[in-house]
Amino acid sequence: MEQITSKENRWVKEYVKLSHSKSYREEKRLFTVESVKLIQEAFENGIKLEMVFVTKSCYEKKSQELEKLFQTTNCYMISSDIEKKISQTMSPQGIFAICSMLDKTFSVDTIYHKGKYVMLVDLQDSGNVGTIIRTAEAVGMDGIILTRSTCDYFNPKVIRGSMGSVFRMPILVIDDVNGFLDNLKENNVKTYASVLDETAQDLLQSEFASSSVLLIGNEGNGLSEDVIANCTNPITIKMRGKAESLNASMAACILMWEMMK
Amino acid sequence: MEQITSKENRWVKEYVKLSHSKSYREEKRLFTVESVKLIQEAFENGIKLEMVFVTKSCYEKKSQELEKLFQTTNCYMISSDIEKKISQTMSPQGIFAICSMLDKTFSVDTIYHKGKYVMLVDLQDSGNVGTIIRTAEAVGMDGIILTRSTCDYFNPKVIRGSMGSVFRMPILVIDDVNGFLDNLKENNVKTYASVLDETAQDLLQSEFASSSVLLIGNEGNGLSEDVIANCTNPITIKMRGKAESLNASMAACILMWEMMK
Repeated sequence: MEQITSKENRWVKEYVKLSHSKSYREEKRLFTVESVKLIQEAFENGIKLEMVFVTKSCYEKKSQELEKLFQTTNCYMISSDIEKKISQTMSPQGIFAICSMLDKTFSVDTIYHKGKYVMLVDLQDSGNVGTIIRTAEAVGMDGIILTRSTCDYFNPKVIRGSMGSVFRMPILVIDDVNGFLDNLKENNVKTYASVLDETAQDLLQSEFASSSVLLIGNEGNGLSEDVIANCTNPITIKMRGKAESLNASMAACILMWEMMK
Repeated sequence: MEQITSKENRWVKEYVKLSHSKSYREEKRLFTVESVKLIQEAFENGIKLEMVFVTKSCYEKKSQELEKLFQTTNCYMISSDIEKKISQTMSPQGIFAICSMLDKTFSVDTIYHKGKYVMLVDLQDSGNVGTIIRTAEAVGMDGIILTRSTCDYFNPKVIRGSMGSVFRMPILVIDDVNGFLDNLKENNVKTYASVLDETAQDLLQSEFASSSVLLIGNEGNGLSEDVIANCTNPITIKMRGKAESLNASMAACILMWEMMK
């Protein structure tokens, strides 16, 4: 296996740049993944690993478990100095990959037909986005819609938070929220805007249509007035505690759970 | 207002040590809080602020909003160098406090009588612990039980994740899990062990007793066999997606939601 010993190596620099810059990821159509489990998940879900960096100790420890991966991808041995430089976790496991973006987009037509979708509007916290994608898969949702202003799903923290669900879930990124909602409305898809509003429809009194999209708003501000007005059903979680203190991912979790059970 | 300009100042060092060391917090019966909203929450919930550190710009910006707090507590002006040294967040807001631990313990007898409680057994992730405490308050649970091995609730990340719920929720810390469960059983409290087990009772088929304790296990390993055996009802979330991919705080969220609705 070829070795990379210099921190100034072109691919080391490329890895760091891809990890930190959304626009660079989009330009190159590449993203990064770290840790044994996530790289395995990527590999098993048909993501192309363009380049794998592995420390000697990880390579030796995982030579059996990752045999196929090591045989079929472009691997480079890295020093622990380089590991420290490129890792974004507290306890790196010695394996890193540069991957090609998979086109996970689905056609809007799919939604008209049938299915339950969650749409994240302007969410900024990568941990929340990852957790919601992971929970959406867990409860059996059919896909994820992200507005362009939401934290992108190739962000390393979103990938980590999702525990690999981003590799499996269909994901659609949209630019024009209101145009998209109009389009859904014309095609009889129900759109549920989650709001903190006592006058909105109570989640527990709601029946979800066979084609439903649940909208979750920004962590601090929720959904904007015009987006709420453009949805067919504003919906709220009524409970005896302090509902306003649910965070975005917990509210999304409860809403998706009720939608799918 | 007195000024602190040296990073070697005794109280600056004390703040850092209290932020990082659980045993030091326990020895001194003190803990730290950062940010405007959390310090306000602490203040309004009867937590004694022993000492507040504030930057000039925060003091000027918040002089009206925090007037009462500034007047009644022991405040020191700090430089932005010190702010950088002591802050544990990416965008510090210039205000920090050393607080006295409040005795939030409740008597076990309270549980016998009536109420819904969540018990965290050996949870290690401070973010999860904070989020679960926050969600427990949001859905209206009556209190929190933490095993001694669970991340302590005066950990700064737990406080942040809970958004101040730790200041309001009754919290009991226990040493002997099985002794505690025996005790509850003898007093007719139902204990629900959350497990990933198809043969366990389905959450959706469950009625929760008027005195109920829900047990959530460690992120990686779940609850141990002996703890599960010692509970009255093993309980599981059945769903059409990939249940095993729910994380501890999401599973807790769904379980608490069903328990309280």
